[in-house]
Amino acid sequence: MPQARRRAFFVSDRTGITSETLGESLIEQFDGLKLKRSTYPYVDSTDKAHGLVQIINRSAEEDELRPIVFASIANQEVAEIIQTANALHIGFFDVFLNRLEKELGMEARHSVRSRVHNLERYDARMEAVNFSLNHDDGMSEKNLEDADVILMGVSRSGKTPTCLYLALQYGIRAANYPLTPDDLDTTDLPRMVKNHKHKLFGLTIQPERLHDIRQERRPDSRYANLNTCRNEVADAQAMFRRHNIPFTNTTHKSVEELAVAIMQECKLKRRF
Amino acid sequence: MPQARRRAFFVSDRTGITSETLGESLIEQFDGLKLKRSTYPYVDSTDKAHGLVQIINRSAEEDELRPIVFASIANQEVAEIIQTANALHIGFFDVFLNRLEKELGMEARHSVRSRVHNLERYDARMEAVNFSLNHDDGMSEKNLEDADVILMGVSRSGKTPTCLYLALQYGIRAANYPLTPDDLDTTDLPRMVKNHKHKLFGLTIQPERLHDIRQERRPDSRYANLNTCRNEVADAQAMFRRHNIPFTNTTHKSVEELAVAIMQECKLKRRF
Repeated sequence: MPQARRRAFFVSDRTGITSETLGESLIEQFDGLKLKRSTYPYVDSTDKAHGLVQIINRSAEEDELRPIVFASIANQEVAEIIQTANALHIGFFDVFLNRLEKELGMEARHSVRSRVHNLERYDARMEAVNFSLNHDDGMSEKNLEDADVILMGVSRSGKTPTCLYLALQYGIRAANYPLTPDDLDTTDLPRMVKNHKHKLFGLTIQPERLHDIRQERRPDSRYANLNTCRNEVADAQAMFRRHNIPFTNTTHKSVEELAVAIMQECKLKRRF
Repeated sequence: MPQARRRAFFVSDRTGITSETLGESLIEQFDGLKLKRSTYPYVDSTDKAHGLVQIINRSAEEDELRPIVFASIANQEVAEIIQTANALHIGFFDVFLNRLEKELGMEARHSVRSRVHNLERYDARMEAVNFSLNHDDGMSEKNLEDADVILMGVSRSGKTPTCLYLALQYGIRAANYPLTPDDLDTTDLPRMVKNHKHKLFGLTIQPERLHDIRQERRPDSRYANLNTCRNEVADAQAMFRRHNIPFTNTTHKSVEELAVAIMQECKLKRRF
């Protein structure tokens, strides 16, 4: 009988996104490690904590393998209960809050913070998301003026998800300029973006990958044809080089990596 | 002269998003703590590490306050150099990788992982983002069938950013059903979503906040009128209650919190 997979619990008195982020970045360091994951957000009372300890202990018995608990729990009472579970405890707040308290000479609140104060952050995000959506594939001079950055690339090179990630993660207003075959026929920058050259960032992609993506969308079209993809990508890259527009290849990059590259290259500052 | 603000450095040999996420959740625990932040992603060579140590040390001298370094660095050589800086070092990998290695009886790779294997994840995200965008405010029966979840609420109640976050963070295909005044005139569920009742999740919002948001969009319109907002929100909530549709109030919640609430309530599983 194959051995049971070890279980990983991501536990938090908030959304659990921090404990997932931390846990996954640690797990990624072990090649071939397979875990059975579950996330328990909003464990914010001693009752819920005791209930979860039972679940963890039961799984330790059933699997005959100690689970791993990745915890980011601000509430100390809850945190201490979770620590009693039969598991390897990776407690993100336990270790670091203490060190920070000493260094800062301040006491940590050890409680979940209400989100009311974050309205500003919410507004900045909303505005940036709406900006991206309103100008996805169609924009005016005015919009380009308001943009923090303009992503330029051929159709399906990854502009839209990158714009949206920039909006959600950093509150950045990213516009999106799709290079059409007409644009690529000339050596000039497209008329609309010419006056905003300093805001331009180019996205390029492997023609084979572009072909696959377009093929899904419009099978066996001229649009998806591998030669079309090769020519468009070559023309776009030539345009970026000719006009000294910074650009990056999206093929093997995650949306996070693209966003960070753009923030750095264009010296953008998060809006919240 | 007012004291200089203490500096916080977020350092990583990758994007820096992990060190920012973890760092911010620690900083949030200290009320009133003001820091001057800078992020250094892709510190992936000993040269870059030595360069950054100089920057950190210089800032410690200038500010006469030790900076705080939030580091998530997989490469051990680089990590060790950064640790020599004159700063409080909060190293996410240092402490926990060791414990995990012991528990698992495996060695961590201690190096940045190439992202090539993540094509699957990228595809799931792209697909979900495209799904959301294609069906934002206009969809067919077919789309609703393919959706993992359908967010329903009055105009500007927060559906779109939540759909996009679900797509980017979890690869979830979230459709978006805007409740029109016509929909709200009857006690029935809207015809289009009737057959997908089990996928519905409602968003509601404080009428005053809705008024503010709509006012920005169409000042002094009937649409933005506080009474209109009150009536629409009341009708929408009545509809959710009548048909037992789970719902949440978006007013004081971040997009992350909304997404997690929906994942939980609708028992959704991430697609990557």
